[in-house]
Amino acid sequence: MTSVNANRSLTVVALSGGLDSCVTAATAAAEGRRLAFAHAHYGQLTEARERRAFHEIADHYDVAARIEFDFRRFAEFGGSSLTDSSMDVSPADLTNRDVPTSYVPFRNANILAACVAWAEAIGAEAVAIGAVYEDASGYPDCRPEFFDAFRRVVETGTKPETRVAIETPVIGMSKAEIVRKGVELGAPLELTWSCYRNEERACGLCDSCAYRLRGFAEAGVEDPIPYDVRPNYR
Amino acid sequence: MTSVNANRSLTVVALSGGLDSCVTAATAAAEGRRLAFAHAHYGQLTEARERRAFHEIADHYDVAARIEFDFRRFAEFGGSSLTDSSMDVSPADLTNRDVPTSYVPFRNANILAACVAWAEAIGAEAVAIGAVYEDASGYPDCRPEFFDAFRRVVETGTKPETRVAIETPVIGMSKAEIVRKGVELGAPLELTWSCYRNEERACGLCDSCAYRLRGFAEAGVEDPIPYDVRPNYR
Repeated sequence: MTSVNANRSLTVVALSGGLDSCVTAATAAAEGRRLAFAHAHYGQLTEARERRAFHEIADHYDVAARIEFDFRRFAEFGGSSLTDSSMDVSPADLTNRDVPTSYVPFRNANILAACVAWAEAIGAEAVAIGAVYEDASGYPDCRPEFFDAFRRVVETGTKPETRVAIETPVIGMSKAEIVRKGVELGAPLELTWSCYRNEERACGLCDSCAYRLRGFAEAGVEDPIPYDVRPNYR
Repeated sequence: MTSVNANRSLTVVALSGGLDSCVTAATAAAEGRRLAFAHAHYGQLTEARERRAFHEIADHYDVAARIEFDFRRFAEFGGSSLTDSSMDVSPADLTNRDVPTSYVPFRNANILAACVAWAEAIGAEAVAIGAVYEDASGYPDCRPEFFDAFRRVVETGTKPETRVAIETPVIGMSKAEIVRKGVELGAPLELTWSCYRNEERACGLCDSCAYRLRGFAEAGVEDPIPYDVRPNYR
């Protein structure tokens, strides 16, 4: 049994290893809370690289606990370009508001459910997740209404004495605002990984690279990770 | 990728292998729907026996698809007598309305989230779960309010064209009513397993055995599975 005892309140952060979840962690750390990091494997193509980012960011924040959840069953479902190697990851289209091919069915509900269970078991008072809606690419489970509904599930589905807040500190931010917030809080952005395709050097061409590069450009900050190409996205 | 195509509508049933989930499956089958069964491993002590029940009931209903979800991480959290071999499974106390030691943190949220993801991927229109509130032992994630909240999570967190109903056909039934319904629908009650402690012959003494035995007795039906002892519960 994981035992995490101290006076400062404990927050579980769902940490993919990307920019948004890193800045989410930085936000909780800046409030003086202790952190516990949870990472989900769901058979994504770049899993090994994301896991490395997860552990490096966890080391950076000297987290009180870390856990990995195995959702590789999602890969067997198929239907998402992030987990199905027979589908191409779409080239970036920053104007498309349809649900993209990289949508993984109900991913955030599964990640939140696991994080809340862990939070209840280790006595954490919050689960923070780096979902972004404003500048995001149309995932239904990144909408504020989804998180509001999930809060009600937590209220009704846990023990009466349990209080676990669901926090989405970057949900209303643009990528540029997230970059600026990360820089302001001293978040280790050089340790993050966002590319859906590559593990050595980011491709610069997938949706995730495009949003990230545009965000850094708009923030006037140089992205510290290596890229194969760095197009100018507007 | 699981491919399930036919004209009749498809329902995912969260099937533990116990009485309640078997009668839940029987209810959907009686409406002429095709079935897809999902089973969760969460490190419970009687997992091997429950899995056998799952597969035998799946064979009985000739299901269109079956899947097993690995939630054994829950066992590492500790805190539940169902998954922690250092805790005793409490003897039955049918009057206790506190959250029992067998509570697994946020279990039904995790099971539902996985089932809805699978349902969305295979085109199922409903997820049915055998939660019981009326005659149950105080699990917060068996309350109708919890399922109402989860329905809203599904509405907000899946693709716009996705419609997955969350069904709890036995939630308001007593165990005796569930037994009667199972007999009426020809459910294979002899294949089910409910005991929290044993795998060969049910113990007859744990909470789950006690509720089951009382239910069969009140229904005037003989429980077809073997027991070490069969106390008369009132």
